[in-house]
Amino acid sequence: MKKNYVRPLDLRHGSVDLSHGGGGRAMVQLISDVFGKAFDNEWLRQGDDGAVLPAPGPGERLVVATDAHVVSPLFFPGGDIGCLAVHGTVNDVAVMGARPLYLAASFILEEGFPLADLARIVASMAAAAREAGVPVVTGDTKVVEKGKGDGVFITTTGIGALPVGRSLSGANARAGDAVIVSGTLGDHGMAIMAQRENLAFDSEIRSDTAALHGLAAVAMAAAPGLRLLRDPTRGGLAATLNEIAQQSGVGVVLDEAAIPVDPQVAAACEFLGLDPLNIANEGKLIAVCPADEADALVAALRAHPLGARAARVGEAIADDHRFVQMKTAFGGRRMVDWLAGEQLPRIC
Amino acid sequence: MKKNYVRPLDLRHGSVDLSHGGGGRAMVQLISDVFGKAFDNEWLRQGDDGAVLPAPGPGERLVVATDAHVVSPLFFPGGDIGCLAVHGTVNDVAVMGARPLYLAASFILEEGFPLADLARIVASMAAAAREAGVPVVTGDTKVVEKGKGDGVFITTTGIGALPVGRSLSGANARAGDAVIVSGTLGDHGMAIMAQRENLAFDSEIRSDTAALHGLAAVAMAAAPGLRLLRDPTRGGLAATLNEIAQQSGVGVVLDEAAIPVDPQVAAACEFLGLDPLNIANEGKLIAVCPADEADALVAALRAHPLGARAARVGEAIADDHRFVQMKTAFGGRRMVDWLAGEQLPRIC
Ligand SMILES: Nc1ncnc2c1ncn2[C@@H]1O[C@H](COP(=O)(O)OP(=O)(O)OP(=O)(O)O)[C@@H](O)[C@H]1O
Ligand SMILES: Nc1ncnc2c1ncn2[C@@H]1O[C@H](COP(=O)(O)OP(=O)(O)OP(=O)(O)O)[C@@H](O)[C@H]1O
Ligand SMILES: [Mg+2]
Ligand SMILES: [Mg+2]
Ligand SMILES: [Mg+2]
Ligand SMILES: [Mg+2]
Ligand SMILES: [Mg+2]
Ligand SMILES: [Mg+2]
Repeated sequence: MKKNYVRPLDLRHGSVDLSHGGGGRAMVQLISDVFGKAFDNEWLRQGDDGAVLPAPGPGERLVVATDAHVVSPLFFPGGDIGCLAVHGTVNDVAVMGARPLYLAASFILEEGFPLADLARIVASMAAAAREAGVPVVTGDTKVVEKGKGDGVFITTTGIGALPVGRSLSGANARAGDAVIVSGTLGDHGMAIMAQRENLAFDSEIRSDTAALHGLAAVAMAAAPGLRLLRDPTRGGLAATLNEIAQQSGVGVVLDEAAIPVDPQVAAACEFLGLDPLNIANEGKLIAVCPADEADALVAALRAHPLGARAARVGEAIADDHRFVQMKTAFGGRRMVDWLAGEQLPRIC
Repeated sequence: MKKNYVRPLDLRHGSVDLSHGGGGRAMVQLISDVFGKAFDNEWLRQGDDGAVLPAPGPGERLVVATDAHVVSPLFFPGGDIGCLAVHGTVNDVAVMGARPLYLAASFILEEGFPLADLARIVASMAAAAREAGVPVVTGDTKVVEKGKGDGVFITTTGIGALPVGRSLSGANARAGDAVIVSGTLGDHGMAIMAQRENLAFDSEIRSDTAALHGLAAVAMAAAPGLRLLRDPTRGGLAATLNEIAQQSGVGVVLDEAAIPVDPQVAAACEFLGLDPLNIANEGKLIAVCPADEADALVAALRAHPLGARAARVGEAIADDHRFVQMKTAFGGRRMVDWLAGEQLPRIC
């Protein structure tokens, strides 16, 4: 009547195998020793099929956002897929104006993936969740055969509470509104690309990956008439503004000279034939607000560590074509279009 | 000033390419034409970074569950990865005693995956969500290079509302409680295995995949003292009962003769050297309730189309070892252990 023996996890030299997704002892062990220990909190400890959680306060609404993370490489200057998976989803909840409350996390592991790498990613994820104050309350672990995945994919889903009376949406921009960015553009995407292409610079380009709900709260407090926030991830500022233009039925005119770009990012973009406006960010906000609140908003963002290089970069205009255009440094105008996406796969 | 042209999606002969995950026009088009049309609802139509949703009623708590779905093959007798991804997560919310309210869905697509297959899967998912009354309110779409994924992986996250005063948990079972199953065991897993191994039977083994919140409501109404519900997915009844035994600090004794198994499933299991107790189900509930409520519970389940073959199959006992055992048809006893998981990868 002896129970099957499961050997202890070898977190130094071991690797993921198919039994870690099979629903048996090996899976239970991986979940408890790797995920459970790192994410530990009262809800996860319940160990049931779902987490039972306090709901938002009276009159508040729920905000739910989900993102799969498939970034390659898994580790990059400034972060890794683990913290990115926390930040990305926290930010999608935060830009809706909500307080992020809880995260669910599902993992698709490839057979053969080193347990040491997994543990490092999970530790980074747990640290990011703790720092953001948003616990991972439930999860899932699947394993696919070697060659049917790529190390690890992580889907996070965020749940937040939207305070009574608040409404931010990409559909709220109006002609005359100011367009503001919270800092330099293109850092995350170029950190990934530079590592992939083995570009060498004087100093490393680092991802800006960060949780932005603190910065979003600052923005909402500084600009009571705030129309919307967005995190310009895949497709960069260009895609985000085109989306907003479509949703709101306005045009946008940017001022190239006002757009903050790190000189190394600019150099890398030029080298690779890319435009920083098309490159993904993971720690930046776009804000649209009434013109008369723009100065206060920029000042408030600049006073926050994550918004030091905030700038007013353009305005929404009446335009039935819903074009996004840019006044160039040379005094001309050009269209700012979505990029055709093949060039930058697996950036987040 | 003409905008980049994006050719229409060829849903018959086209396939997924890297641009469908790149954050540009091709992605927006795929999301709106394939996912948006199929899942259509007021929340998804908002088109923002997260969905803004009514919260549960006063005093209710949230229940959140998440599962990645990596089943292979993608289409199988009785279902496909699309409806499975809805049912699996709805069921994890339902077994907590909650009303499932919303789903988030994230897709990891492999470059080259036929759009026709994707559309079929999404249609099945949309139909399952509609039938269950649980809309897909937000989503995400990523694409990985050929050979870095396997067609499509789908992670769903479910959000439900737990009525005031209700508490079901794997930790609630007590010695003397009855253990009930809602029907035959092993159907889902054997449908997948039979297809994979190309086994031929008189009639096809079909997956039992189904949304169980209706059946769960029936169980809660029939047995006011209900301790817990579980869906015995990966690892089957054996894994689920071992989990419950661990959580509750009890033993379990099953009665082999009482356990319903379809004869074809039994035959396939025997052929492959598997035990139906270790095989995944996707449309069955385990219920544990006080012994004096067991008959009423079984009768109520049997009156529901998804519970026609419900049966009382065992009881919880005092046992410091927390063993799960079975009285065999021959009058002996054997241990019912977790299966080592390699044998049955990618069953859900
Ligand atoms: N990677 C993970 N991180 C944190 N918790 C996890 C992780 N994987 C699983 N869990 C937790 O472990 C418990 C068991 O998860 P499991 O996936 O086996 O349950 P299930 O969803 O009911 O089964 P299945 O996935 O077969 O449908 C749950 O409480 C779940 O939240
Ligand atoms: N597969 C899908 N099914 C349903 N809706 C989807 C799907 N993929 C994306 N969406 C919806 O499309 C909109 C845009 O999604 P997108 O992923 O581009 O936003 P994001 O998460 O802010 O960006 P990123 O994923 O780059 O961080 C959202 O409203 C999202 O809910
Ligand atoms: Mg996002
Ligand atoms: Mg699970
Ligand atoms: Mg976003
Ligand atoms: Mg599940
Ligand atoms: Mg379950
Ligand atoms: Mg997304």
